Amino acid sequence: MKRTILFSALLAACSMTASATTPDGTVASTVIPEAQYPRVLPDGKAMFSIFAPEAKDVKIDICGRKYDMTRSPEGNWTVTTDPLVVGFHYYFAVVDGVGVIDPSSEAYYGCGRMSGGIEIPEAETEAAYYTFDPKVPHGQVRECQYFSARENAPRRCFVYTPAEYETKTDKRYPVLYLQHGMGEDERGWHQQGMMANILDNQIAAGKCEPMIVVMDYGNCGYIHGARKGEKRDDFGASFTPILLEEIIPYIDSTFRTKTDRDNRAMAGLSWGGHQTLQTTLYNLDRFAHIGSFSGALFFDPNKIREIYGGVFADAGAFNKRVKTLFLGIGSEENFGTEKISAALTQAGIDNTLYVSPGTHHEWLTWRRCLNQFLPLIFK
Amino acid sequence: MKRTILFSALLAACSMTASATTPDGTVASTVIPEAQYPRVLPDGKAMFSIFAPEAKDVKIDICGRKYDMTRSPEGNWTVTTDPLVVGFHYYFAVVDGVGVIDPSSEAYYGCGRMSGGIEIPEAETEAAYYTFDPKVPHGQVRECQYFSARENAPRRCFVYTPAEYETKTDKRYPVLYLQHGMGEDERGWHQQGMMANILDNQIAAGKCEPMIVVMDYGNCGYIHGARKGEKRDDFGASFTPILLEEIIPYIDSTFRTKTDRDNRAMAGLSWGGHQTLQTTLYNLDRFAHIGSFSGALFFDPNKIREIYGGVFADAGAFNKRVKTLFLGIGSEENFGTEKISAALTQAGIDNTLYVSPGTHHEWLTWRRCLNQFLPLIFK
Repeated sequence: MKRTILFSALLAACSMTASATTPDGTVASTVIPEAQYPRVLPDGKAMFSIFAPEAKDVKIDICGRKYDMTRSPEGNWTVTTDPLVVGFHYYFAVVDGVGVIDPSSEAYYGCGRMSGGIEIPEAETEAAYYTFDPKVPHGQVRECQYFSARENAPRRCFVYTPAEYETKTDKRYPVLYLQHGMGEDERGWHQQGMMANILDNQIAAGKCEPMIVVMDYGNCGYIHGARKGEKRDDFGASFTPILLEEIIPYIDSTFRTKTDRDNRAMAGLSWGGHQTLQTTLYNLDRFAHIGSFSGALFFDPNKIREIYGGVFADAGAFNKRVKTLFLGIGSEENFGTEKISAALTQAGIDNTLYVSPGTHHEWLTWRRCLNQFLPLIFK
Repeated sequence: MKRTILFSALLAACSMTASATTPDGTVASTVIPEAQYPRVLPDGKAMFSIFAPEAKDVKIDICGRKYDMTRSPEGNWTVTTDPLVVGFHYYFAVVDGVGVIDPSSEAYYGCGRMSGGIEIPEAETEAAYYTFDPKVPHGQVRECQYFSARENAPRRCFVYTPAEYETKTDKRYPVLYLQHGMGEDERGWHQQGMMANILDNQIAAGKCEPMIVVMDYGNCGYIHGARKGEKRDDFGASFTPILLEEIIPYIDSTFRTKTDRDNRAMAGLSWGGHQTLQTTLYNLDRFAHIGSFSGALFFDPNKIREIYGGVFADAGAFNKRVKTLFLGIGSEENFGTEKISAALTQAGIDNTLYVSPGTHHEWLTWRRCLNQFLPLIFK
């Protein structure tokens, strides 16, 4: 058999994309193997390159702006952006009006669909807490399938177990339920959020308790705002009973968990923050630690005593019962989180406010929030 | 805060894609949440729909053929294909000449990049062995990061552990190292190959031994055929020492494995089949079970006694040493596997040939091969 024929056969179903090599910048950490673009320059500008000889217009849509690309005579389209904010950004190539994943990019579930992504790196010292460290023991992220009677279908969750879980086979662990945002899914915290590295590094340094982290799908991973027949106010509300009646029992029967409320936390980002408060504040018999990262919180600071079934009306009782109430936000967001925290404080409710300097409604804010939240819980 | 403003903020970085609903066929199992296309008709035809009002030409590239799509006045492009072969197919939307992932599709690593994919379902009875069964216990697929000194970088593998691994904490398990093909990566066997369902179902039925399955990156996941400075003959050859010196020791020190050769198998599909023979036949002190699924095998059947360092020269010794030698192939491929099997048999080498009826060089062939291979090993 001729080797060239075989290679052709192996690739029969596959299209190819050309990619050029230039000495500029560093290839982004978010590309597929051997891709040479996108690249990141030291000042945070990103260079994109897409081979599209037949297209008449190609743009890069990133950080709320569309950049026109320039065509070379051979049909290679390139552009260098303005300096971008550090952290992880979803982005799309727009080919003659169609938003698509840059063929050089890894794919990430965000924006209610698979999306391109690029990491604009921070300084190494800033990024250390979410960077893989060869010197520390590494936990595992386990993909688990289980059957949901409520949905009459299999569901999937990801479960982080700390490195020592493999060897300390008599030890039981507290559990954090950690939710993604709107338009995202159960992959986000591990893939974009770097949660495994954050946990590994904190556990190794003794900064947080070794714990199990469960990441499931919040039923809010599409961007049209609601399923057919679902009111906008109910968006993702179907998740709470699935969590309480199916996921928690599944986790507690499959893993060596501590099952009391003091050892159960829930946190989420953006819409997942909304879901976290909706879930935990009505079920404080199940949760003692609560985190909202850039939470989509709709409550009126003037009605603190009435909202969530009046749970904040008796501050003394609340503070005794809830061990952690954490509110995080990026400084460049405008979600009103600081006002909510201040109103809670004024009403006597113990809470921790964290403002991430210089970051937007994006994953770098949420990595930092997780990093701040972990040391507070299960103490 | 106005809810509408918040929703806008949440979606600021995201483009949207319109999708229409029709009563035709069934939405493919391989779409993102809430997508209505692609759909599969009972006769195996697939219907695609892409909203691209500004594009001048949109095609679907699937199963070696490009289908022209037709534009509606609103700019929605649709096409219905001819009946497609059952099983999983990579595919691309071609927008004005650029091959991209259909915005409605989940993304799969294949073709050396992230690709679209569609499952053309078999009859339920045919598909049962790789379908999630709520009635059987389910194993887990663990994503593990480890540091490779050879590559001076973190690497990732996926490790299937059977359901009973969680409870039989004194039991040790045999290990199958299972490789993807060229242009694919360590995700393929789990995501496209349905390996967890196959294992769960076989273990529950007592058809195969409970085992650990390790899926790592074969360093052949890009489609240009070789890394810079790498000869085509060496493509992916860097994987063998990583497997022997780093992955196997990592697995044996992290999981409760049986570490003798009788309890270690290796199998791979396509280029992974080539890598499997290259790895195992020169290291029979480490492996006793060998599987090649549509293997890219380059040996001359007339030189059986000479190839692989003469390992086949002494058939008696080989048959005593190698407990399983399995060669699988799809009936619609033309890889010469039957001739190789016949030549081996003629040379006195025990081997099992499996020909998958009606399937091509695609994942349905490899799911079937795995299903045939598993009951043979570790007995």
